[in-house]
Amino acid sequence: MKVEQFKIDESNHQHKNEHQRKFDYVAADVANLDEVLQKLAAFNITIPSWALGTGGTRFGRFSGGGEPRSLEEKIEDVGVIHALNRSSDSVSLHIPWDIPENAASIKALAAQVGLRFDAVNSNTFQDQKDQQLSYKFGSLHHVDKAVRKQAVEHNIQVIKYGVELGSNALSVWLSDGSNFPGQLNFRKAFQNTLESLKEIYEALPDDWKVWVEYKPYEPNFYSTTIGDWGQSLLLANKLGAKASTLVDLGHHLPNTNIEQIVALLLMEGKLAGFHFNDSKYGDDDLTVGSINPYQLYLIFNELVEGMDARGMNHAKDLGWMIDASHNVKDPVEDLLQSVEAIKIAYAQALIVDRAALLEAQNNNDVVRAQEIIQEAYRTDVRPLVAEARLRQGGALKPVEAYRQLAVREELIKERGSKTVATGL
Amino acid sequence: MKVEQFKIDESNHQHKNEHQRKFDYVAADVANLDEVLQKLAAFNITIPSWALGTGGTRFGRFSGGGEPRSLEEKIEDVGVIHALNRSSDSVSLHIPWDIPENAASIKALAAQVGLRFDAVNSNTFQDQKDQQLSYKFGSLHHVDKAVRKQAVEHNIQVIKYGVELGSNALSVWLSDGSNFPGQLNFRKAFQNTLESLKEIYEALPDDWKVWVEYKPYEPNFYSTTIGDWGQSLLLANKLGAKASTLVDLGHHLPNTNIEQIVALLLMEGKLAGFHFNDSKYGDDDLTVGSINPYQLYLIFNELVEGMDARGMNHAKDLGWMIDASHNVKDPVEDLLQSVEAIKIAYAQALIVDRAALLEAQNNNDVVRAQEIIQEAYRTDVRPLVAEARLRQGGALKPVEAYRQLAVREELIKERGSKTVATGL
Amino acid sequence: MKVEQFKIDESNHQHKNEHQRKFDYVAADVANLDEVLQKLAAFNITIPSWALGTGGTRFGRFSGGGEPRSLEEKIEDVGVIHALNRSSDSVSLHIPWDIPENAASIKALAAQVGLRFDAVNSNTFQDQKDQQLSYKFGSLHHVDKAVRKQAVEHNIQVIKYGVELGSNALSVWLSDGSNFPGQLNFRKAFQNTLESLKEIYEALPDDWKVWVEYKPYEPNFYSTTIGDWGQSLLLANKLGAKASTLVDLGHHLPNTNIEQIVALLLMEGKLAGFHFNDSKYGDDDLTVGSINPYQLYLIFNELVEGMDARGMNHAKDLGWMIDASHNVKDPVEDLLQSVEAIKIAYAQALIVDRAALLEAQNNNDVVRAQEIIQEAYRTDVRPLVAEARLRQGGALKPVEAYRQLAVREELIKERGSKTVATGL
Amino acid sequence: MKVEQFKIDESNHQHKNEHQRKFDYVAADVANLDEVLQKLAAFNITIPSWALGTGGTRFGRFSGGGEPRSLEEKIEDVGVIHALNRSSDSVSLHIPWDIPENAASIKALAAQVGLRFDAVNSNTFQDQKDQQLSYKFGSLHHVDKAVRKQAVEHNIQVIKYGVELGSNALSVWLSDGSNFPGQLNFRKAFQNTLESLKEIYEALPDDWKVWVEYKPYEPNFYSTTIGDWGQSLLLANKLGAKASTLVDLGHHLPNTNIEQIVALLLMEGKLAGFHFNDSKYGDDDLTVGSINPYQLYLIFNELVEGMDARGMNHAKDLGWMIDASHNVKDPVEDLLQSVEAIKIAYAQALIVDRAALLEAQNNNDVVRAQEIIQEAYRTDVRPLVAEARLRQGGALKPVEAYRQLAVREELIKERGSKTVATGL
Repeated sequence: MKVEQFKIDESNHQHKNEHQRKFDYVAADVANLDEVLQKLAAFNITIPSWALGTGGTRFGRFSGGGEPRSLEEKIEDVGVIHALNRSSDSVSLHIPWDIPENAASIKALAAQVGLRFDAVNSNTFQDQKDQQLSYKFGSLHHVDKAVRKQAVEHNIQVIKYGVELGSNALSVWLSDGSNFPGQLNFRKAFQNTLESLKEIYEALPDDWKVWVEYKPYEPNFYSTTIGDWGQSLLLANKLGAKASTLVDLGHHLPNTNIEQIVALLLMEGKLAGFHFNDSKYGDDDLTVGSINPYQLYLIFNELVEGMDARGMNHAKDLGWMIDASHNVKDPVEDLLQSVEAIKIAYAQALIVDRAALLEAQNNNDVVRAQEIIQEAYRTDVRPLVAEARLRQGGALKPVEAYRQLAVREELIKERGSKTVATGL
Repeated sequence: MKVEQFKIDESNHQHKNEHQRKFDYVAADVANLDEVLQKLAAFNITIPSWALGTGGTRFGRFSGGGEPRSLEEKIEDVGVIHALNRSSDSVSLHIPWDIPENAASIKALAAQVGLRFDAVNSNTFQDQKDQQLSYKFGSLHHVDKAVRKQAVEHNIQVIKYGVELGSNALSVWLSDGSNFPGQLNFRKAFQNTLESLKEIYEALPDDWKVWVEYKPYEPNFYSTTIGDWGQSLLLANKLGAKASTLVDLGHHLPNTNIEQIVALLLMEGKLAGFHFNDSKYGDDDLTVGSINPYQLYLIFNELVEGMDARGMNHAKDLGWMIDASHNVKDPVEDLLQSVEAIKIAYAQALIVDRAALLEAQNNNDVVRAQEIIQEAYRTDVRPLVAEARLRQGGALKPVEAYRQLAVREELIKERGSKTVATGL
Repeated sequence: MKVEQFKIDESNHQHKNEHQRKFDYVAADVANLDEVLQKLAAFNITIPSWALGTGGTRFGRFSGGGEPRSLEEKIEDVGVIHALNRSSDSVSLHIPWDIPENAASIKALAAQVGLRFDAVNSNTFQDQKDQQLSYKFGSLHHVDKAVRKQAVEHNIQVIKYGVELGSNALSVWLSDGSNFPGQLNFRKAFQNTLESLKEIYEALPDDWKVWVEYKPYEPNFYSTTIGDWGQSLLLANKLGAKASTLVDLGHHLPNTNIEQIVALLLMEGKLAGFHFNDSKYGDDDLTVGSINPYQLYLIFNELVEGMDARGMNHAKDLGWMIDASHNVKDPVEDLLQSVEAIKIAYAQALIVDRAALLEAQNNNDVVRAQEIIQEAYRTDVRPLVAEARLRQGGALKPVEAYRQLAVREELIKERGSKTVATGL
Repeated sequence: MKVEQFKIDESNHQHKNEHQRKFDYVAADVANLDEVLQKLAAFNITIPSWALGTGGTRFGRFSGGGEPRSLEEKIEDVGVIHALNRSSDSVSLHIPWDIPENAASIKALAAQVGLRFDAVNSNTFQDQKDQQLSYKFGSLHHVDKAVRKQAVEHNIQVIKYGVELGSNALSVWLSDGSNFPGQLNFRKAFQNTLESLKEIYEALPDDWKVWVEYKPYEPNFYSTTIGDWGQSLLLANKLGAKASTLVDLGHHLPNTNIEQIVALLLMEGKLAGFHFNDSKYGDDDLTVGSINPYQLYLIFNELVEGMDARGMNHAKDLGWMIDASHNVKDPVEDLLQSVEAIKIAYAQALIVDRAALLEAQNNNDVVRAQEIIQEAYRTDVRPLVAEARLRQGGALKPVEAYRQLAVREELIKERGSKTVATGL
């Protein structure tokens, strides 16, 4: 299944005039229009290989049809997304769910639909068939050196797969933690984790990074050994320059000011990037921007200001990835909505009047600062995002085009209506 | 596998003197000793059939060995628990995980180990093989009348199973809800739920009750159609006298004052009973009393005061059940710990100096009220709980006895080390 | 200080062309334009008399200049707000902070600036000088009947003041609660509150309502006797048709789905109205729409749908009031921002494609439902709100006009730079 | 007002036999009895000078009688507490609420009742009369260098007061933050704070420490510039060896695992000490141990294990202080209850079977680990705490003795019934 360009063009044709009217209207008020459009065009968000199938909870999973049955089919699906939105030019693999048996052919396949491979992800939160030692009580933090060793070796293996695919970062999420007071010695667990990460760090190629993710709870419900940004940063600082902290938007306690954390990690040069999603209660893994789009915008506001202050390249100097679970939506549609929400937030952040904001801040003019921040947010920037997409050959309305082109129906025809993709 | 009485007696023998010393010490200060011991002896907590196997999360499940492979084996396990603690004289079945093909023989089997059947539980949060319509978008609240009908009929079927087993209550937990703003019309969802519950209510035998459980989130992450006690009570009041509200301790937003809710439901005559567990973050389903034992005690403090005010029988007039997930513990040990924690909290509540507390409250003597409340809590009542158990033939130290008697090893021998029980 | 119409017109003149261009653009896509503009014009939000001064916290208060020193000056300030935004045509008084010594003259004064009097508010959360009995341990829930009587009489007195002013609702917020486990008997506290409210209810004139507010904590930090919507609704149902539940957006536990509560209260015919503000942590009393504008919109989405389903008049059938604290902003500017945020959310809710949404919901088309909900939200409706204001003589840009006209400077000149308004 | 020893002895006399019976019973099971008693005897908790008066909230304050009107009277009150509990041998002053005009005479006065001076506290969260520049928009983080300078100089002044009194630590709590998105540049605020703290750090005498407190919100409700332990640690590490992180138990987001933070700060050698209190919702500043005593115990469990691992002196190597607000209790009684709760938690932590726990942890025997942890917690250690107090001349039952000796009545007679102490 491949979405052909002419079909996208056809789809765009019907919306052309309407789009032009809207774009002209919004563009008239954007001082730095070309720059905004260029930045939007350059900004891509990685699709994780496990997000192409229907997700579930511990209470069950309601699979949809036409889910990818192999790594090849997952790449096919990301290809569809990228063809439609021109903003998802890479895939992030999860080992062992997506072991690339033949890296060269997988790379070639991906290249055919314009994709490259972003960070690779290890998995020590589940036991695999024929695995020697269990991760029931953790992996890199385990009291038993042998388990730690097994987990370290798995991570090194993942790096190897990544090297073959052209990746240059290892993303580590540890579920290691405890369910009950007394179960764990926090200090030793931290130190074991550090020791294990050091061994993995040593195995990193020169141009590689390791991203240390944090999460306060789930699947452990009393403590998590890398539980917050402070713990992740502590580890990253002890590891060295190649290590940094990965922020998953759903991995925070209620009411956390995430944008402040983002600003400080950027300040420290230790922000690795993002796993995007949205949530109301915990790690709900909902569509990006579906619950609190203003928070997403405030995060991008910090990113734009902070990256510019450090002279960073928005598109390339951080990792941008979606990490969500699609329990009740078609995964492809969900991902298209997520990417759109991210780019809208990014566009809003790009048009903030920074000089005026700085002045308001320096005068403690709180009312004015809010007006400036909300002026950009309340602006309907969708035509800007659509224009950038259009110029790259994408669809003006990706979700609508996906439906018109009956992609899912086609996939079901090819793959069947009862397929189940690997993943959560 | 059955734990024979003489083995328990042997185990007790070694602790006898030590226990007697401790009991005498504590008993000396308990004014209403006989009453306390009688109430403790009469107080049983139901074991749910799905709690005998290792639980898991969406990230995985690490099964233990010797898990029950059938309803018969689950009853066997509850029999072990009850033999040891003499406080778990009933089982709560979950349909369709535990369909009793031959009710008479199952009842007989249970009776052999001193067990009866408590509330039966329906399941419309998962799709079963060969199920005609899907519950992906809900069951009793569904926009499609046909799905609602299917779910209603399932509940009526569950009642029938329950009648055969001698149960007299249907426990309904609905996962119905929505993941995204806009997905659901809250009002219509509520009204559909009410309509469906009315049909189920009509099918209740005369001496039956229906318990309406509430939960704020999971597996739906934007809204749950029966999301809090207010919504459950609204439904229960519209349904009638047989309907009441079931409180699961883990089903509350952060910082909720659960004991106040309990007191008010009791006041209204609408408290059905409890699903006991403990939690730090959400519906963590941890061992009762492992995270916040003081809260558990405060709840029992309200229960004792409130039930006495209404002249209720502590043991019989509410439903008492554990509902937990045993991800890293032997389920039987976990359940023994949970029951112990409940009985400790109950014992503490029984020895509160109610007359003094009332006087302090009437004088707004907040310091004194706290002293009275904490006096009972800080008392080490374990010897009281143990004595009540001992008098009924239970083990002085249930967990220790379970290990000494090598029950799990025996179960693994019988059932194998790779069994997986039905359930979450 | 009065803002003269010609000055507003002058201010508007400079923005006229720009506004017209924007309005024409947005209006082109609004099917029900006239209806939307009429509804926006009719929609007013009451200003509470205590919101005209700088607020504070227990850690201190940093007063601004030119704060109103009397009820007359407060009315003057609301007059300024209403002149600018044409959306704040009423004041809500707080007794005893604003006792109207001469009701007739106060009414006349208010009428001069186009204002009427909305709900009156009682205060039993503070002790007043020369008050006989203390509210340290509560008021309507107090263990001492004499204290309850005093509090009941105060509320009746407040009703009398309200009658003279032309109000027709009493708004009751009780801080009654407890700080420590054991301090209070929850059941008796509830029953005392009910008894007290019944006495107040009896004193209500025929065409009056009583609005029962709820709040989970602060200033009491263990329990609040009317702590959540379920408790308020229970009371309102026991009181009768004149009693209903008032929703303050900041009075919820973390992660509460407020829009669902709103929908259900509407369904029950028991929603009194709103105290608007925004918050990130607790009852932060921040500017409306400054923290989570999407949530505000989702609430209005329920309101529009639910009120229409009951054939209610949006503007008149519920109470709409701001209740915020202005710790670091000029209170008038803060209120102008709050009213603007409310009207933006309302406008967005008015343009939701309800037929399409209903269809998507009936098809469980979750992706489409989200698209529809977000289509309205992402639309920049500010020109619609501005147009409605313009047509009524208000300022196109109220905050900007307020600054250009140097209102605050004028007030400081009149009142001094060290005034402190009554209130929190 | 001074509590004479013979009166305490008289009070103890009536409880002597009862105490002996209880002590003998508990002591029989404590292997390291002498060590436990010695450690309990050596363990003191500082009383902050602002905690001797009734506290309040933004909604009001209900003062009690006999509150201290001066620093001298505050010391008198702490003297009473220490005479009764022999566990509060120091005072922590707050500048400018308690400026010691004549340090020598204040020191002498304190010494007479066995007190010394612990950490001194600066205050830049309020404006003082005649203060040149306002802290409305912060102090050490302020955009204006002049305000920062003023705040730095205030802190240096506080150090000077402290030196005269024999203190050796400066405790810094900054309320600096923002109420609205856009108000603040997080990075610059952090960097300004760091710069200011460096200047203060430079002014520290050789043997002094600076303790950097964190708090997520209140009095600012969008961001706090030192908002969590990670931010405080980042600052402490950049400052140097004299700087460390102070933990106030109420300064955390909902559900935070505080004991893990404590363990990691200890591991890093960067834990300064504690401000003890308890809370259910936010910074509620309730009596220690009144809401979640198990959490308090778990924290002490980490402290004992972690300090022992580093060879630290429990009593001396960290700062132990109460920081609470006494809104509805007699402050002296509240403080006596708080100190008792702390010592109970400490005693429980001292009797944990560490060898057995270590073994259980190394075996991943989660059930056993919980049994061990709860064995100590469920033990009624009050007789141990009382014995340690008794041996030092304190009261067996401090609160009861305080009432019997009619201390408050005496204070009211001396000071009047309408006094109001400085503080919150």
